Amino acid sequence: MTSSSLQPLAIGIDIGGTGTKFGIVDRSGNILFAGSISTRGHNEVDSFIDELYKSLYPLIQKAGGPGRIVGIGSGAPNGNFYTKTIEYAPNLPWKGIIPMGKLLENKFNLPVVLTNDANAAAIGEMMYGAAQGMKDFITITLGTGVGSGIVANGHLIYGHDGFAGELGHTIVIPNGRFHEGTEKYGSLESYASATGVRLTTLEMLEKSKEESLLRNIPPAQLDSKKVYEAAMKGDRLAKEIYEFTGKILGLALANFVMFSSPEAIILFGGLTKAGDLILKPTRENMEANLIKIFQNKIRILISHLKEADAAILGASALVWDMNMQEYSSPLKV
Amino acid sequence: MTSSSLQPLAIGIDIGGTGTKFGIVDRSGNILFAGSISTRGHNEVDSFIDELYKSLYPLIQKAGGPGRIVGIGSGAPNGNFYTKTIEYAPNLPWKGIIPMGKLLENKFNLPVVLTNDANAAAIGEMMYGAAQGMKDFITITLGTGVGSGIVANGHLIYGHDGFAGELGHTIVIPNGRFHEGTEKYGSLESYASATGVRLTTLEMLEKSKEESLLRNIPPAQLDSKKVYEAAMKGDRLAKEIYEFTGKILGLALANFVMFSSPEAIILFGGLTKAGDLILKPTRENMEANLIKIFQNKIRILISHLKEADAAILGASALVWDMNMQEYSSPLKV
Repeated sequence: MTSSSLQPLAIGIDIGGTGTKFGIVDRSGNILFAGSISTRGHNEVDSFIDELYKSLYPLIQKAGGPGRIVGIGSGAPNGNFYTKTIEYAPNLPWKGIIPMGKLLENKFNLPVVLTNDANAAAIGEMMYGAAQGMKDFITITLGTGVGSGIVANGHLIYGHDGFAGELGHTIVIPNGRFHEGTEKYGSLESYASATGVRLTTLEMLEKSKEESLLRNIPPAQLDSKKVYEAAMKGDRLAKEIYEFTGKILGLALANFVMFSSPEAIILFGGLTKAGDLILKPTRENMEANLIKIFQNKIRILISHLKEADAAILGASALVWDMNMQEYSSPLKV
Repeated sequence: MTSSSLQPLAIGIDIGGTGTKFGIVDRSGNILFAGSISTRGHNEVDSFIDELYKSLYPLIQKAGGPGRIVGIGSGAPNGNFYTKTIEYAPNLPWKGIIPMGKLLENKFNLPVVLTNDANAAAIGEMMYGAAQGMKDFITITLGTGVGSGIVANGHLIYGHDGFAGELGHTIVIPNGRFHEGTEKYGSLESYASATGVRLTTLEMLEKSKEESLLRNIPPAQLDSKKVYEAAMKGDRLAKEIYEFTGKILGLALANFVMFSSPEAIILFGGLTKAGDLILKPTRENMEANLIKIFQNKIRILISHLKEADAAILGASALVWDMNMQEYSSPLKV
């Protein structure tokens, strides 16, 4: 055995609405073994845990056995750090409050940390991604929805109940667009998500007289991917859709900056693929709404973690973070 | 000497635009000696420091000499925790960047902590006020302007540059009311401050045909105190002004809650005197804009610290907080 093979390892599990990915990761962020199972295929959480064990345990043995594993870090929608439960996650097959942490601990006989997927991503960025060395930053996922993780003074903000960081649900346009999931009006997510971009497209096609490639697509098939493709072909209306979306995102970011004054805001998710088409209006409208002491200071970065790996790395990083918090004091003294 | 008189003491200094208050405080929050000098009377910061020393040093001697003082805590507008400087404070007589921490340290030969006045108030609330025992809360001052301090996981959020927590400048109504100081549109401060209430009053008097006691007052003399007095006499328009202000405040609070999920939001400053006239619409519109996981959980409290004492207590509490952060690790191990 080489000395590097004796390093402690962590397991990262990213529980998503469709699939669940997992990996065994070393401290440097190398994914040594990885796999995935279906989430959607399991109506009962017990059968999900059983299949996870069957797929993951052989990897643990390949990695040197459970003795080398420091713990399991898990990210899941609506995951609560304090209670290690998943609470009322609309996109998962299991309803109500699921004691996921306890279930994993009992099955694997390893310590488990659980948080929501966006928080896991933030820790992943801090340890292996664009936020390395930063103590104050915010990560925002612009995907089907808008997720976020906030780090201040080197630690995730969990809030008194473990639910802090729901920035996608902050209201940007009072009495603005209706959000079907939350029944609120004008939230960031209702505009700056894939779903939001689709709705903006339908609205703009109706209001504007402008020629557009998007007019050739049946409304039911219009999605943010089609808008991206049209924009890449130079379609003006598609570019205006990004402009509009970026402006709203920029306004929201200005408010986030005036809350926690982060060194950087790190964006990831599908919408960031449009690059400057969305980033330019985002930056400009953020700066326009910031008071002077914050202007020209805050970087907006795109995550450079591989998307498939980011989730696993983020979840595994929770384990190192857990151990830092518990064991760091004696080292410091 | 009794044993209690051997307790360590801290000095709290609250530097305001008009006057500067100071006190010598014990760990239980008793102000043993107190005094004040004019801020406005000193165009040069050196002469300010000289007068402060002349007034404060005799109190230090009465309290048992500098040996009993652990440090000086100071709150000031635009005070920066990291650099101990006051930067471009529009309401102070000294322009540019003032090395206030250094000046105080040199003059008094004691360690100095400095932060902005709203952060000092937040620590004061945590140690002696409505936030005792809380680890996650936000304090908001509704005064001439809107100040704020954010505590997450037991610590103030300073941000990467020491300027976090400018919640008064977050945009609530995009393209809304112009703020002369910041030149931004639609910030919380432009509505939910004494200045904002005055502007709302002028707007409503013009738009509405309703009879009101406020119509008897020359516009130049209309201020938030007059609105309060009219509301107390049952004036309907005055009540509508609070209703409008409360709604905007409530919307802003909902966004703050979805950021850091505090256990409570603690309000102080002149506008809170209107009690339920402003608090009821604030609570209702906060709840209406919160997603379900946050509803009916967050308390809105009014600070019960005496206003004259709160500033001194808050500033002195910075000293205990400084010492907790520096010396707590060995005790924990």
